[in-house]
Amino acid sequence: MAHISLPDETLPGIVGLFSFRPETAVPLQLLAETLLRGESPLTSGERELIAAYVSHLNDCHFCHTSHASAAMAHLKCDLSLIDDIKHGFQEIALSPKLHALLGIAAKVQKSGRQVTEEDVAAARTHGADDRTIHDTVLIAAAFCMFNRYVDGLGTWAPLDNEAYREMGQRMAFTGYVRNVDETAI
Amino acid sequence: MAHISLPDETLPGIVGLFSFRPETAVPLQLLAETLLRGESPLTSGERELIAAYVSHLNDCHFCHTSHASAAMAHLKCDLSLIDDIKHGFQEIALSPKLHALLGIAAKVQKSGRQVTEEDVAAARTHGADDRTIHDTVLIAAAFCMFNRYVDGLGTWAPLDNEAYREMGQRMAFTGYVRNVDETAI
Repeated sequence: MAHISLPDETLPGIVGLFSFRPETAVPLQLLAETLLRGESPLTSGERELIAAYVSHLNDCHFCHTSHASAAMAHLKCDLSLIDDIKHGFQEIALSPKLHALLGIAAKVQKSGRQVTEEDVAAARTHGADDRTIHDTVLIAAAFCMFNRYVDGLGTWAPLDNEAYREMGQRMAFTGYVRNVDETAI
Repeated sequence: MAHISLPDETLPGIVGLFSFRPETAVPLQLLAETLLRGESPLTSGERELIAAYVSHLNDCHFCHTSHASAAMAHLKCDLSLIDDIKHGFQEIALSPKLHALLGIAAKVQKSGRQVTEEDVAAARTHGADDRTIHDTVLIAAAFCMFNRYVDGLGTWAPLDNEAYREMGQRMAFTGYVRNVDETAI
């Protein structure tokens, strides 16, 4: 049970929190929509991978599994992607650019101060431009928020990967700006 | 110099980033406005203290000093508040409730998973209700994002506390939803 009384205890992760405080749900949903599905040099599949990877590093089961499922939907992978992210991307083929960006995201997860000019220069040699670097850092930073919000208030989440399949499809193709009691981040 | 080329390199911290990507500035500014100046059982001064404290724990000079200055404006303290936050609140008188909430915020800064039922129960004994606990956790989580965004992209910030006095007044009394090239978080 969550640390606070939610209007509907059956809603998992951040979805229950959106229904608790719709005023903050509005900017949070718009941020997720803009970052993960808005215009960007990165595909939505790449951006969902960054989101899922940072959520794994933060040990946030709900965000990791749901965003891995959204990445799976975009990239047409199977459910094994969820565990592959935990195991350091041994199955999925990453471009050198995405590999460099995931390295920057991992540093942001620890602290913004860990990102060096060399990290950014290395990503540039693989084709990352300013917008790509900006979006990577902000996605990683935003999931350091979403993860803490979900776990800091003790929300529940389905344990089984299969339970996230439909949620991932909805996040990928319907998006994040919907009625507060229907939306997942 | 920041890790990416900003439209105006003279704008400090997150302000330059807002001008780089106005699409993400909109939800970020609305989130700050709602969290720090919207309706809440916590005063804006208390909320700015939580924001400044978490930013200090994340070693984010720009966010720590600017939000400490906003707290200073709300609470009518002098500039010594900025350093007092760094030194663990030895000068300012904290209520037992705010002391408990700052403890929860410090745990969120490390990981959402660190917040225990006992932490929440302790805050409740000092008068914190569900909304208070929700807002504390989300403010702390949000500053784990803002801090990483500001430092992960290597933005510059004025070093001297005095330079933040006017910014703090503006954040406290004008707010966060303004033209992207005028606003600070």
